[in-house]
Amino acid sequence: MAGPRTISLDAMGGDRGPAVVVPGAALALQRHPDIDFLLVGDRVRIEPHLAEHPEVAERSRVVHTDITVEMQDKPSQALRRGRGSSMWLALEAVQKGEAACAVSAGNTGALMAMARLILGTMPGIERPVIAGQWPTVGHNSIVLDLGANIGATARQLADYALMGAAMARALFGIERPRVGLLNIGVEEIKGVEEVRQAHAWLKENDLPIDYRGFVEGDQIGQGIVDVVVAEGYAGNIALKTAEGTAKQMAAYVREALTSSLAAKIGALLADSGLRALRERMDPRGFNGGPFLGLNGIVIKSHGGMDAFGFASAIRVGYDMADSNLIAHLAADLEALHGKLSSNKSPEAKQA
Amino acid sequence: MAGPRTISLDAMGGDRGPAVVVPGAALALQRHPDIDFLLVGDRVRIEPHLAEHPEVAERSRVVHTDITVEMQDKPSQALRRGRGSSMWLALEAVQKGEAACAVSAGNTGALMAMARLILGTMPGIERPVIAGQWPTVGHNSIVLDLGANIGATARQLADYALMGAAMARALFGIERPRVGLLNIGVEEIKGVEEVRQAHAWLKENDLPIDYRGFVEGDQIGQGIVDVVVAEGYAGNIALKTAEGTAKQMAAYVREALTSSLAAKIGALLADSGLRALRERMDPRGFNGGPFLGLNGIVIKSHGGMDAFGFASAIRVGYDMADSNLIAHLAADLEALHGKLSSNKSPEAKQA
Repeated sequence: MAGPRTISLDAMGGDRGPAVVVPGAALALQRHPDIDFLLVGDRVRIEPHLAEHPEVAERSRVVHTDITVEMQDKPSQALRRGRGSSMWLALEAVQKGEAACAVSAGNTGALMAMARLILGTMPGIERPVIAGQWPTVGHNSIVLDLGANIGATARQLADYALMGAAMARALFGIERPRVGLLNIGVEEIKGVEEVRQAHAWLKENDLPIDYRGFVEGDQIGQGIVDVVVAEGYAGNIALKTAEGTAKQMAAYVREALTSSLAAKIGALLADSGLRALRERMDPRGFNGGPFLGLNGIVIKSHGGMDAFGFASAIRVGYDMADSNLIAHLAADLEALHGKLSSNKSPEAKQA
Repeated sequence: MAGPRTISLDAMGGDRGPAVVVPGAALALQRHPDIDFLLVGDRVRIEPHLAEHPEVAERSRVVHTDITVEMQDKPSQALRRGRGSSMWLALEAVQKGEAACAVSAGNTGALMAMARLILGTMPGIERPVIAGQWPTVGHNSIVLDLGANIGATARQLADYALMGAAMARALFGIERPRVGLLNIGVEEIKGVEEVRQAHAWLKENDLPIDYRGFVEGDQIGQGIVDVVVAEGYAGNIALKTAEGTAKQMAAYVREALTSSLAAKIGALLADSGLRALRERMDPRGFNGGPFLGLNGIVIKSHGGMDAFGFASAIRVGYDMADSNLIAHLAADLEALHGKLSSNKSPEAKQA
């Protein structure tokens, strides 16, 4: 088994392939000089970038393939045609223990389908989820599921809580992360049945989390919990709406600060503060959404990210591998499932 | 039947009751000097405020009651104890035709339960929804359902489209409002079954709307449609998340503009632009969420609003009554239901 140091990269994924992946690897090496890379993809397209980044070349092995998964491929097509593709081989390296994690900026649906097939899901987990970091007024929070699955049972929501907690532990070093369940009212009487049942279970059972109950959409950004658990449809809508609102606000601020000559001079004077603001909201800084619930670590980078953003995704993978997340999470999930079946069966309790 | 000019106000609703309602009425009169008010509530508490606002006193009739619905009352309690309350009588005035609409800043659940009981739902409508205005880069959009109902059938989502369109017509004077359906992917293959079925119906049938297909959460604020239709749980999460993100961004901007002496001077210079920004994002300007699907117009004001915000809610009610919304919406819904049952039955098509 490889240590956290070997990371396989789908060099052909994303809008610009190796032109982003290789410089991204270079930036990641600045933070973690001990990483070794497997660069999977078309050697002819990768090598010019390695020539520009000898520090990456020195720590990389190129695994050649000329098969690539296209952004518009449906998951079923990708599974049929994508065997041996850069995405496939990057995942297979994790399955074979040659890499501690895989990072791809390719087609999300294809990556999820392949990851499930190649790595398999953890015991008791039917479908993996996508998690992400959400900037808050404090440190980032973890939000999951961001849309891998539509609909979630109470038991799946409880699983998500442990998955998100494992990620918070890996990324932020918090031993007992505070976990909240996304709902539309803080009173216990509100909300869908699955959410209420998951709430009861998370409250009753002794788990390696600090369960804080329901949170509403407007509380995610307040950072009152480290992990926000949501059904995938709701989680995706929350994420997209927040992204849209942040962009809208940024446009308003830009407009306000260019509305007059005085405003423009004012903006110049406030430049350093505004630059800090831009850095804080920079989506590249929290790029990298892990798939959780698989027998291996897979990080999805946004397809449109630049090298700086891709490096963030590599760092997420590094931290997760470094914390031995898979083994710890498997143990946490096993303990939870034991508790839930030794109480009453989920179905009996839900009724 | 009263013209649009008579509006009944639950004078005891909201955190500050008549101290906000009466000055709010005064502000609404500045825009629409032809409104007459029914001020329903405790005469002793209302009259001192009328003394301060003789222009409101002149156009108001006080309907006394000393029964009030409390903010923490459950809907069932409110229905039991709230008969004859200020909320009840304000709604009853609409039912009796003494007022063209009712506005209350009271307990949302209680107001919804009472409104259903007193006014009844429109033919073919089981449960009313809550709509709201959403600021976009262009004019405001209408978003519904904001959380009155958890879960929605395809037919209910189609109803919401017509309800939202009626509101957009009333508020913005748009004859064929652009309508989008909130979903988590723009491809038709994604999303829950009910949303997909509603999408098919809205596309196939000739309706008094300009149906634009799916929109994602990040597109709501772009103003690409006039009406965004969502299932209530998703709609509420979108709304709350947007509110939270807007607050978070505002806090960041404040911090950026006070981070140094230069930044503070810059902020002073940019003051007029920043003031326009604040006005644009001021939630008081788009306060007032109608309940749609009832045989009468009911507007819910946020409980924490000041007079300026309450006046916005009154204006929403005025515009909706002025456009004869109920009669037009009833006709639109009847036509839709006729079309859906003359094609195949919803169940048969959904399978």
